[in-house]
Amino acid sequence: MTRQTDRLPTVLQTLESSEPAALERLFELLRIDSVSTDPTFKDRCAEAAAWCAKTLTDIGFAASVRPTKGHPMVVGHLKAVAAPGQKRPHVLFYGHYDVQPVEPLAEWEYPPFEPRVTEDPKNGPVIRARGAQDNKGQLCTFLEACRAWKTVTGGLPVDVTVLIEGEEECGSPSLPGFLAEAGKELKADFALVCDTGQWDKDTPAIATQLRGLAGCEVFLKGPSRDLHSGLYGGPAINPIRALTAILGQLWDDKGRVAIPGFYDDVAELPPEQKAQWLALDKLDSQRFLADIGLTQSAGEQGYSVIEQKWSRPTAEINGITGGYQGAGTKTVIPSIASAKLTFRLVPGQDPDRVAEGFRAFVAARLPKDCTVSFHGERGSPAVGFDITQPYMKAAAGALKDEWGRDALMIGMGGSIPIVQSFREVLGMNALLIGFGCDDDRLHAPNEKYNMTSFTKGARSWARILERLGQQ
Amino acid sequence: MTRQTDRLPTVLQTLESSEPAALERLFELLRIDSVSTDPTFKDRCAEAAAWCAKTLTDIGFAASVRPTKGHPMVVGHLKAVAAPGQKRPHVLFYGHYDVQPVEPLAEWEYPPFEPRVTEDPKNGPVIRARGAQDNKGQLCTFLEACRAWKTVTGGLPVDVTVLIEGEEECGSPSLPGFLAEAGKELKADFALVCDTGQWDKDTPAIATQLRGLAGCEVFLKGPSRDLHSGLYGGPAINPIRALTAILGQLWDDKGRVAIPGFYDDVAELPPEQKAQWLALDKLDSQRFLADIGLTQSAGEQGYSVIEQKWSRPTAEINGITGGYQGAGTKTVIPSIASAKLTFRLVPGQDPDRVAEGFRAFVAARLPKDCTVSFHGERGSPAVGFDITQPYMKAAAGALKDEWGRDALMIGMGGSIPIVQSFREVLGMNALLIGFGCDDDRLHAPNEKYNMTSFTKGARSWARILERLGQQ
Repeated sequence: MTRQTDRLPTVLQTLESSEPAALERLFELLRIDSVSTDPTFKDRCAEAAAWCAKTLTDIGFAASVRPTKGHPMVVGHLKAVAAPGQKRPHVLFYGHYDVQPVEPLAEWEYPPFEPRVTEDPKNGPVIRARGAQDNKGQLCTFLEACRAWKTVTGGLPVDVTVLIEGEEECGSPSLPGFLAEAGKELKADFALVCDTGQWDKDTPAIATQLRGLAGCEVFLKGPSRDLHSGLYGGPAINPIRALTAILGQLWDDKGRVAIPGFYDDVAELPPEQKAQWLALDKLDSQRFLADIGLTQSAGEQGYSVIEQKWSRPTAEINGITGGYQGAGTKTVIPSIASAKLTFRLVPGQDPDRVAEGFRAFVAARLPKDCTVSFHGERGSPAVGFDITQPYMKAAAGALKDEWGRDALMIGMGGSIPIVQSFREVLGMNALLIGFGCDDDRLHAPNEKYNMTSFTKGARSWARILERLGQQ
Repeated sequence: MTRQTDRLPTVLQTLESSEPAALERLFELLRIDSVSTDPTFKDRCAEAAAWCAKTLTDIGFAASVRPTKGHPMVVGHLKAVAAPGQKRPHVLFYGHYDVQPVEPLAEWEYPPFEPRVTEDPKNGPVIRARGAQDNKGQLCTFLEACRAWKTVTGGLPVDVTVLIEGEEECGSPSLPGFLAEAGKELKADFALVCDTGQWDKDTPAIATQLRGLAGCEVFLKGPSRDLHSGLYGGPAINPIRALTAILGQLWDDKGRVAIPGFYDDVAELPPEQKAQWLALDKLDSQRFLADIGLTQSAGEQGYSVIEQKWSRPTAEINGITGGYQGAGTKTVIPSIASAKLTFRLVPGQDPDRVAEGFRAFVAARLPKDCTVSFHGERGSPAVGFDITQPYMKAAAGALKDEWGRDALMIGMGGSIPIVQSFREVLGMNALLIGFGCDDDRLHAPNEKYNMTSFTKGARSWARILERLGQQ
């Protein structure tokens, strides 16, 4: 039997020498404009899935594309190198090949699907493209770590199943059904998810608390057709006016969401956690705000910035549309106005109850002659993990070896619904380690991924796989 | 000297006997697809201008086409029959030969530039074509009245200058310059404009009050870039939230615009006018609302629907935009949100002062860390005419003779910028008489003009010219 622990230096060397090829592989994937939310890009999503299956196969996985009603899944398996009868841990790695839309396209400094490495004053070399971080860059850190282990040792330190989906950016509609169906094949000891961030560009982190999400789109209809505002302005209800009047009441003057009962199930942080985060907040919150051009928090009064983004719920209007959108003026009173909203949830909150509260909030303020409809409702509850588990400690040790600093146990403002599904459907906890940075501009124009994240991310996974194999 | 007043019956008879030829002349003009906003139709606009000049010349006008940087103007002059030294009133008639685009073409029941007369269950025979009402049909009512007077008497009852432009449907860009340049030639005692409507298909009207307009676009900027609402939601100010909160306060709970000072210069209607409009309102407001799918007015409490649309100022949000607009969801906090607003003004209100009030209203409510900018500001004041002027009474009397009913003195919710230009540049008031009906579908597919509007419109102008000549 090969003593794999001795081979780590060779694996890390291999990662170093093969980095140009690794980067070219990532670029191949980044060139595929796999925008999952827009049906126009359906074929491109299929192409990205095929790329993932081929790449897994090249590494040595038994991999295939699995059709769904939406965009396909990709599943691959590769066993640990182990003596006969020796039991290795089994991990399920999860990533996604789909990306967010690129609009507004005019704000990109480079074409979003023509990846390149450019020099950034703060971060050194960075990979620029839609998906450079979320999630194609992060996904490839893990795949490259597996490739290096396989090249050097002929196998992996642990049994690995890989699941790559193509609907993460549009609410993962096919995932629950697929997990239920393929559960036996996918069930592992725990999951690895590389879709989160570091504390800062030099400090690794493990995410142990994720906010949940409830979202919907609200349509307000007023007159039966678009009207000329000269002929009808005054008597005719304008649905944009009605919508702004309702949404303008969604927060009180303390920055709290004004939906009755919204905070009923929200727990306060344990005092020691609150104290630790308050210390981080002092280090970080002014920089965090300054980085996005702000000087003060607009969130709930009485909570630190870190609490506001990790452990407090929010409401956000992600989009609003009504009337004339083009250049110049059109004196129209539109028939319809709409908005897209999401609520970030914390442990204890029920997404359905939050959505119901929002619907009631709108209904209670609806002017006469307006009708309202809600579409695209979706949600997932928040998640918290036990940081004393052995696999959590193993990962933290590997990260410290690579980065020379303790990994911070952090919360996450965003949602990763898959983590909740792994718990509910497969009874698995997840280890959330990612190498994103706050300034990666994910979901926005000019997304990037630091080359250090890509390089040290792959090295981190190589080390984590080794440590997990020793358990 | 011919006693023209005795000749009116003959003029009206001539109009009756020559109506088939008059209709064929109108059809010639309707066949020219003179869509001014689309450069594709430039030659067709020139053709329509040539048609107008030739028609005026045929009648007896000294007429010519006048080039501009855009589509040409047509100007013609024809003097009154008068004894040497006798002074007749001089009127400037204004019309336009250009039409709105026809899209969506699929919704037309007949080809828009193949005019025809068809039977309509409600209106009897109607002329169907793009421009049948706006403005070719209306223009021809006046030209045919002039033709009949010239045929019968060898001249007209008053001095007439005709100005026909070809850019009314695209904002009249060449008009201010042309008025300034040709002002001396165009200056008359007052203007006649045939671009408005009747009260209903059997009741004539004179428009004596037009609302003005102030408009601008407001941009609110929050964070320096688009943000992921998971990572930043809570602490980061969302400009859509800020914009809805501000615009949601723009009306109070009585439907009044909440900008301080907005109503300072707004006069109440004279009691007799208010009473007359209230009577009209009782007849009409439920039908007006039902036609657009509404059951009650959303306007200022304490005012009738007719007052709300004719003599009360408004604010309208004509468009609002922010964040993600596509299908599905994007959990973004945008950097910028914007809205397009217009204010309908009534006599006394200064567009600049209204715009300034709006800017101050927004600035006073701007959250910390948001910046605001305003673009595209424009405006024109409202216009009101003195209904006691002799020419107003003369026209009202002529209309009553023709229709057997009093002409109603009505307001107009929309703006007619030419009327303001005549006042400002040429120091002339205008007499706004038109024969359009609410169901003419102007600017929409299947535009029509009632044959009664065409026939009785020409007869009305014949009578009005006579009455004006008696002054």
